[in-house]
Amino acid sequence: MTPGSLTVAGIGPGSDAMITPEVSAALAAATDVLGYIPYVARIAPRDGLILHPSDNREELSRARHALELAAAGRHTVIVSSGDPGVFAMASALFEALESGPPEWQALDISILPGITAMLAAAAAAGAPLGHDFCAINLSDNLKPFDLVLKRIRLAAEGDFAMAFYNPRSRARPGQFADVLATLRAACGAERLVILARAVSTPEQAVTVTTLAELAPGAVDMRTMVIVGSSRTRRVGRFAYTPRSA
Amino acid sequence: MTPGSLTVAGIGPGSDAMITPEVSAALAAATDVLGYIPYVARIAPRDGLILHPSDNREELSRARHALELAAAGRHTVIVSSGDPGVFAMASALFEALESGPPEWQALDISILPGITAMLAAAAAAGAPLGHDFCAINLSDNLKPFDLVLKRIRLAAEGDFAMAFYNPRSRARPGQFADVLATLRAACGAERLVILARAVSTPEQAVTVTTLAELAPGAVDMRTMVIVGSSRTRRVGRFAYTPRSA
Repeated sequence: MTPGSLTVAGIGPGSDAMITPEVSAALAAATDVLGYIPYVARIAPRDGLILHPSDNREELSRARHALELAAAGRHTVIVSSGDPGVFAMASALFEALESGPPEWQALDISILPGITAMLAAAAAAGAPLGHDFCAINLSDNLKPFDLVLKRIRLAAEGDFAMAFYNPRSRARPGQFADVLATLRAACGAERLVILARAVSTPEQAVTVTTLAELAPGAVDMRTMVIVGSSRTRRVGRFAYTPRSA
Repeated sequence: MTPGSLTVAGIGPGSDAMITPEVSAALAAATDVLGYIPYVARIAPRDGLILHPSDNREELSRARHALELAAAGRHTVIVSSGDPGVFAMASALFEALESGPPEWQALDISILPGITAMLAAAAAAGAPLGHDFCAINLSDNLKPFDLVLKRIRLAAEGDFAMAFYNPRSRARPGQFADVLATLRAACGAERLVILARAVSTPEQAVTVTTLAELAPGAVDMRTMVIVGSSRTRRVGRFAYTPRSA
């Protein structure tokens, strides 16, 4: 049996023009592509390629399946939105590797970076992440919500800009209001906020607003939220954080 | 005069296979490319394209020059290493825009994201930024060094992973030792550290070590330093942070 391989590839936030050539090459050489249904839907079918779409919250079983395919000699790619290492499939892959048979650790495994949503959102708005910043996953699926609020308070104390992934879901509609109250108390109502919805897709909508003006309902799971530092400001239609912050 | 344009484009950390198609398209349409000498050296010369390499620490005058060229009808691209919005040229561009003539704000300006060094470094090492993390510029060129140490302490208190840009220079050789002492006090000596030097180039070297074992001399300005959270761990040759942190 010829050796297989497993690649976790970042396909960016939406636009094919943001997919790197090394990711395109990995997809062109793949025998099997796995991933969350809407991400696999972005991959063109062709002879010799098997597509394995799976549901959200199936990350660990998807990772195990990909490792089994690679161990069986297949050239397997897991597609991940944005960058696979930022709140995405790479960590799930290593969790599966850690709990799996030791021989999996000898597999040819590589992670290919992609344009993560916060960087596409920041670029669309200007340069709000132009100085020190934090990336925080607001979902409490896998951590206590108190830890989310603690990290926001510490980031505000350090005057970091902040990028929030998974800001709001139907399962926990009240939590974003708590986030907003914490931010207003720590940063003041006039702090700039960028909302970037469906970034790099035809539905992209970017808004520069303030904590005072932001209504929780303006944010959904397709929205990237960036909160500026105390130095973040507007210039024309843009928002940016200067380098001396 | 036909209207000009100004694009700030991220050319990734080194490998051309990490340059997005939208950045390649902008470069193909450019009449003028500006940037730091080694970045402009990556752009192939061609008829109709004027290359404008400039020195390090010339960011503001480079940005003004690019705005003047765009105002004169040229299709101007500033190339930036990694992602232009992360400790790179986008913020300098908006500083120049803010202090320049008001008519510059009507120019066709866009920022195109790129693969920033910390994401390429994380991918090469596994997934150390797989949960909440901070990006901190250790250079004190434009901020007091005490603020660097304060942010590191707060990031440690929040148990964020941390990615450090510009960790060490010949002008301030002692400061990285202070950073290391602060990290050891806040995180303990056994905390995992990833060093990724010249990531995505033929000279790439990735090391997974601990704060105890890390010598300041192992780090230079081409090294990306990633400090794990308390949950970051090894699996085989990789280091990763699980999703439940």
